[in-house]
Amino acid sequence: MATLGDIGVAAAFNIISVVVFLVAFAFLRLQPMFDMVYFPKWYLKGVRISPNRSGVKKFVNLEWRSYLRILEWVPAALKMPEPELIEHAGLDSAVYLRIYLIGLKIFIPITFLAFAVLVPVNWTNKTLELSRDNGTKLVYSDIDKLSISNIPEGSQRFFAHLVMAYVFTFWTCYVLLKEYEIVASMRLQFLETEQRRADQFTVLVRNVPPDPDESVSELVEHFFLVNHSDHYLTHQVVYNANELQKLVKKKKSKQNWLAYNELRYEKNPSKRPTKKTGFLGLCGEKVDSIDFYREEIERLSKEETILREKTKGNPKSIMPAAFVSFRTRWGAAVCAQTQQCRNPTIWLTEWAPEPRDVYWENLAVPFVLLTLKRLIAAVAFFFLTFFFMIPIAFVQSLANLEGIEKAAPFLRPLIEVKFIKSFIQGLLPGIALKIFLILLPTILMMLSKFEGLVSISALERRSASKYYIFLLVNVFLGSIIAGTAFQQLDSFIHQSANEIPKTIGVSIPMKATFFITYIMVDGWSGIAGEIMRLKPLIIFKLKDMFLVKTEKDREEAMDPGSIGFDTSEPQIQLYFLLGLVYAVVTPFLLPFIIIFFAMAYIVYRHQIINVYNQEYESRGAFWPDVHGRIITALVISQLLLMGLLSTKGAAQSTPFLVVLPVLTIWFHWFCKNRYEPAFKRYPLQEALRQDTRERTKEPNLDLKGYLLNAYIHPVFKDEDDDDSLSGQNEKELETILVPTKRQSRRNTPVPSKYNGSSSPSLADAALDQQL
Amino acid sequence: MATLGDIGVAAAFNIISVVVFLVAFAFLRLQPMFDMVYFPKWYLKGVRISPNRSGVKKFVNLEWRSYLRILEWVPAALKMPEPELIEHAGLDSAVYLRIYLIGLKIFIPITFLAFAVLVPVNWTNKTLELSRDNGTKLVYSDIDKLSISNIPEGSQRFFAHLVMAYVFTFWTCYVLLKEYEIVASMRLQFLETEQRRADQFTVLVRNVPPDPDESVSELVEHFFLVNHSDHYLTHQVVYNANELQKLVKKKKSKQNWLAYNELRYEKNPSKRPTKKTGFLGLCGEKVDSIDFYREEIERLSKEETILREKTKGNPKSIMPAAFVSFRTRWGAAVCAQTQQCRNPTIWLTEWAPEPRDVYWENLAVPFVLLTLKRLIAAVAFFFLTFFFMIPIAFVQSLANLEGIEKAAPFLRPLIEVKFIKSFIQGLLPGIALKIFLILLPTILMMLSKFEGLVSISALERRSASKYYIFLLVNVFLGSIIAGTAFQQLDSFIHQSANEIPKTIGVSIPMKATFFITYIMVDGWSGIAGEIMRLKPLIIFKLKDMFLVKTEKDREEAMDPGSIGFDTSEPQIQLYFLLGLVYAVVTPFLLPFIIIFFAMAYIVYRHQIINVYNQEYESRGAFWPDVHGRIITALVISQLLLMGLLSTKGAAQSTPFLVVLPVLTIWFHWFCKNRYEPAFKRYPLQEALRQDTRERTKEPNLDLKGYLLNAYIHPVFKDEDDDDSLSGQNEKELETILVPTKRQSRRNTPVPSKYNGSSSPSLADAALDQQL
Repeated sequence: MATLGDIGVAAAFNIISVVVFLVAFAFLRLQPMFDMVYFPKWYLKGVRISPNRSGVKKFVNLEWRSYLRILEWVPAALKMPEPELIEHAGLDSAVYLRIYLIGLKIFIPITFLAFAVLVPVNWTNKTLELSRDNGTKLVYSDIDKLSISNIPEGSQRFFAHLVMAYVFTFWTCYVLLKEYEIVASMRLQFLETEQRRADQFTVLVRNVPPDPDESVSELVEHFFLVNHSDHYLTHQVVYNANELQKLVKKKKSKQNWLAYNELRYEKNPSKRPTKKTGFLGLCGEKVDSIDFYREEIERLSKEETILREKTKGNPKSIMPAAFVSFRTRWGAAVCAQTQQCRNPTIWLTEWAPEPRDVYWENLAVPFVLLTLKRLIAAVAFFFLTFFFMIPIAFVQSLANLEGIEKAAPFLRPLIEVKFIKSFIQGLLPGIALKIFLILLPTILMMLSKFEGLVSISALERRSASKYYIFLLVNVFLGSIIAGTAFQQLDSFIHQSANEIPKTIGVSIPMKATFFITYIMVDGWSGIAGEIMRLKPLIIFKLKDMFLVKTEKDREEAMDPGSIGFDTSEPQIQLYFLLGLVYAVVTPFLLPFIIIFFAMAYIVYRHQIINVYNQEYESRGAFWPDVHGRIITALVISQLLLMGLLSTKGAAQSTPFLVVLPVLTIWFHWFCKNRYEPAFKRYPLQEALRQDTRERTKEPNLDLKGYLLNAYIHPVFKDEDDDDSLSGQNEKELETILVPTKRQSRRNTPVPSKYNGSSSPSLADAALDQQL
Repeated sequence: MATLGDIGVAAAFNIISVVVFLVAFAFLRLQPMFDMVYFPKWYLKGVRISPNRSGVKKFVNLEWRSYLRILEWVPAALKMPEPELIEHAGLDSAVYLRIYLIGLKIFIPITFLAFAVLVPVNWTNKTLELSRDNGTKLVYSDIDKLSISNIPEGSQRFFAHLVMAYVFTFWTCYVLLKEYEIVASMRLQFLETEQRRADQFTVLVRNVPPDPDESVSELVEHFFLVNHSDHYLTHQVVYNANELQKLVKKKKSKQNWLAYNELRYEKNPSKRPTKKTGFLGLCGEKVDSIDFYREEIERLSKEETILREKTKGNPKSIMPAAFVSFRTRWGAAVCAQTQQCRNPTIWLTEWAPEPRDVYWENLAVPFVLLTLKRLIAAVAFFFLTFFFMIPIAFVQSLANLEGIEKAAPFLRPLIEVKFIKSFIQGLLPGIALKIFLILLPTILMMLSKFEGLVSISALERRSASKYYIFLLVNVFLGSIIAGTAFQQLDSFIHQSANEIPKTIGVSIPMKATFFITYIMVDGWSGIAGEIMRLKPLIIFKLKDMFLVKTEKDREEAMDPGSIGFDTSEPQIQLYFLLGLVYAVVTPFLLPFIIIFFAMAYIVYRHQIINVYNQEYESRGAFWPDVHGRIITALVISQLLLMGLLSTKGAAQSTPFLVVLPVLTIWFHWFCKNRYEPAFKRYPLQEALRQDTRERTKEPNLDLKGYLLNAYIHPVFKDEDDDDSLSGQNEKELETILVPTKRQSRRNTPVPSKYNGSSSPSLADAALDQQL
């Protein structure tokens, strides 16, 4: 069992590494040569053109004065007011930051209260000391003296914990309520002041029934002309361009390879690069690389032209789905929120995602298949969650020091060194978990895609839900209770409903030290690593040195991606869970949580301002999920406290504690009814107000022209706009024609993460070869 | 333990009583003097005016020929085709009958299969005989030899049960799917061919926000003129007439008493009736009854006039709710199915219930109070469900013969008579349950009302859900496992998740005989009693003899009420549950279920055609609930079978059985997505089609005039139409002005069941006195 000393060592190690990272970042960000890594957002926005700011014109910043203000990025990150942040990085980012803020709002008062009330109550007992004196070989650390473990069985002092559980619950709910209110009004405010966007007028229609006499396009037009005669404006059919897209991707990859080989040849003109045509370039005939790729590209270009014509001309490649646009937002709101046809499986309407948010591959899944796919995905997820744990438990059992000593006695002298022992004990379990977790999001995203969701934002939200469940089962429960996950499931099935919270609850205080180190390793160091951007830094520099030839290449190499809601949010939720569970049990853990939330808030605010570039704007649509998961954490914490107290001879507290989850769930239900509609529906009053305002401002607007090409599959978009738009007034254009040049380029067809295989750029291809 | 002989006695007794009831009914229905009890529906419809049919002109039918066709009512009940039935008694009734039909469709094939496969498999074992030979004092009956109990532990024969569980599940799901499809299309068909009704054009708006400058009426008008400018037609505010209604009710009661006393004086002119004015007429000053009531009525009439003016004139008595009518069904459909305002707790719109379906008292509950009330109702229901069981268990423990003998040894000689013993053993537990169940629906309806639902149909559906849960916990589980309900809950909490199905599953085969007698007592005899209508028969005859003076009185005395979805449907569901649970375990129970469903179908078809008068038309809105509960029964049966098999040494079957509930729940989810929208939403295409048809048929329709008074509180309606409409063309009028004279009279303000206290008629008042 880790002592306070162990934790001290781990904390010191982590603090040092965090400080090192922060100092390194503070230093590197001032170097012009890394400017594109640490400030890509500004390049993408067109505010910065060249890394050389006024005065500083070299690769390395030699002006010593700037180093004096080494921490200036912190106030800079905090300085930007929220409305400006929304303007700069979108509502999603601003709302995302509020998750960290809500963590601070919940836990700072809780920590003060817990330290003022619970710590004295716990500390002034002698249960643990006495039990040691009595000869029961109980090993305990100083942390346990601060925790609920130090209270004797059946003590009246548990009353304090009971009251605190109520206070913490009410405070958390109060903060959640306020925050839900703020976010909902932010969203509505954003919707109201938003500029004209194609998706405000557009509805996605799916499962258009087949008709022998009419094409999909005619059918859609007739249906909406009849049923929404006053409001229908135009529509766009959806082509099944998946094949074409593959071809385009393939061609692009070959082009990258060609460019790479030409570059090699340029640098070393004495030797023309060669390549084997067989599997992975390992076998087969040897050919001249440049010629080979040139031929390939030529062949693919021809194929592409043919396929392009074929796709556009062939009625079979038109999917039974369409984007239908209306004259007014009111008309679109009506159509999106009502049922069109008596058969509820055809003519399904929903709000169209914004053009860059569309996940094109899933637009044509029929209804029956959709329900079947969901079943399969659910079963697959169940097995993933419960059988993925076996390897984790295996590694964790290795992390047991006694186990290692037994398995490899020759390591004993090394392990017995106090510092190393603490190090291993503090870090190993956390790292083992971390490695496993890196593999996971991709699988979960694949599962979500399989389910047939039609927008990237929905995919990310779904993946986040899955990931949260996974973390809950595997990291939280998996760390508290030993044994493989499936063994746990098995034991839970064989345990009674009131035994389960007891089993977990009893282990909770004992695992406090483990979770403290986990917070430091996963949370603190993770954030420090985040701001350093070590991997993007190296990759960008490599690309920049070897491969970037044009500005376009540089821009592509610089692309920082988005913040990744699907992985980052569930991880934050784990800290909420830990904080709420340990608030009453071991308040000593709370400061670590607060430090995490505070650091994360500053760092992510900096990153959102300077680095990340949002891929879509869902207007904070994920908040109901965030809210729901904090509520889940709250209920779990209440149940576990109930279990814990009933083993501590305080079973008479159970009736008082049972009230808490009931009230909490009711509170959730209340919030759901009160605020969730703001995230799911679009009130007609708002729609009308915006319509009216627009009509007075721009009475002669050519809406049809504006909407005409808004929802064209990006693969067709590429044709037209290759370089026809200049980069300068890009930002301005973005607000008018939504999928602008840059976005459509980045979306060729959609960001790599959503494509299974990534669309390899020149740089990627080369790196693959080199690394 | 009841033997086959006991069951035989109980069955014989029940069959005899059923036959007696049926013969009595067949005889009584031919008597003209009972015509109004057995055929009130026809009187209400205006088809029959006088009980004396052509030829038969006396009180007693003396024509012997008609007695030869004593069972002619059975084919007569079955003869009416479904479309005519819908026309005659409404869609709700027709769909309600399909619940019995679905029972037959599910269980007849299952019974054949079970008897063909499972009975031989069970019968050809000797487990029970052997265990008796071995001296383990196992008492078993012949029924158990037909059940799964007769299979030795770990036998390969369980494979047959496993396969049958699959077959039964698939068959049930198939029937459910087909039936959902049929009912959904019946509903849509009905909606399409339905005549013009006020609720097609009307939306109920609740939580109109208070405004200092405008009245509710102005506010509503302005809001909808702005936000639905093309479609808004008119609106009606809702008055808080609860006080006025109480007064009207009181006055009516006094009027009845007056009429009663006048009648008494008429019959016995020598003595003027007197009355004491104190509590319940038991103490206080003695006064002349007729004078007293005359004065009272005069006083109340004055009060009423004042209150009526005050209510109509006072803006404070206008509730923040309104019925808003639109020009077209399309406009109403749009408004009912969208959110109006950015704050989702104000301007709540939903489809208006049809006028006679409105539950006026609940129209003004604000949003926050609504959620709070639901919480309280849920908690109250929980306690009701789990603490109501204590008396039942007490009575059941008395029903234990050995217990009675011990408690009252002097009864021993009586009880030991074989016939009486069988009788008590067979009937007592069932009767004890039955008595308790009679008390329940009123309480549940009060709980539902407290929750704030705004239509009677919704109230009945909600009460039905509660009642089903109650029956499931108390009748089903309560009968299987001994001990009070709270003890059970307690033991379930202390048992593991896989132990619970085992505990219940093991007891299932042993309880087969109990449930068989329950089916006979509750099901068979209940139905026979239903068709006899003994209670209405006596009451009507008493009323008719003593009290009926005018045709209006007679009509009121005749009112048969509605079928009572809130109590009858959950009871049917109990038979579905029993049938599905025992299908694999003790197939011997199935024929009893089939007889129940067959008899119930015929009897209720007869009753719906000839007796009941629906109070509202929800167009089969309850079907999703019915479907959901059969699915619940299916899942319960699967889980219990899993538990049972795992105790029989067939634990290896568990993985195969786990698949079943997963598939069943998925099937439910699929059906919910596929068919439920037909019951919740109104597709725009349909709305438009009806609008168009109407426009071509009646281009000059005065819709505003038609809708003007459709949603007036019945207490105000009474004023105008007291006897202004003649009775002759009533049926015709009904289709135009929905709350017609008769209905509005019956609805003064709503049927007694929904008023807490009933509105006493002359007849009731007198009966109260006499009985």
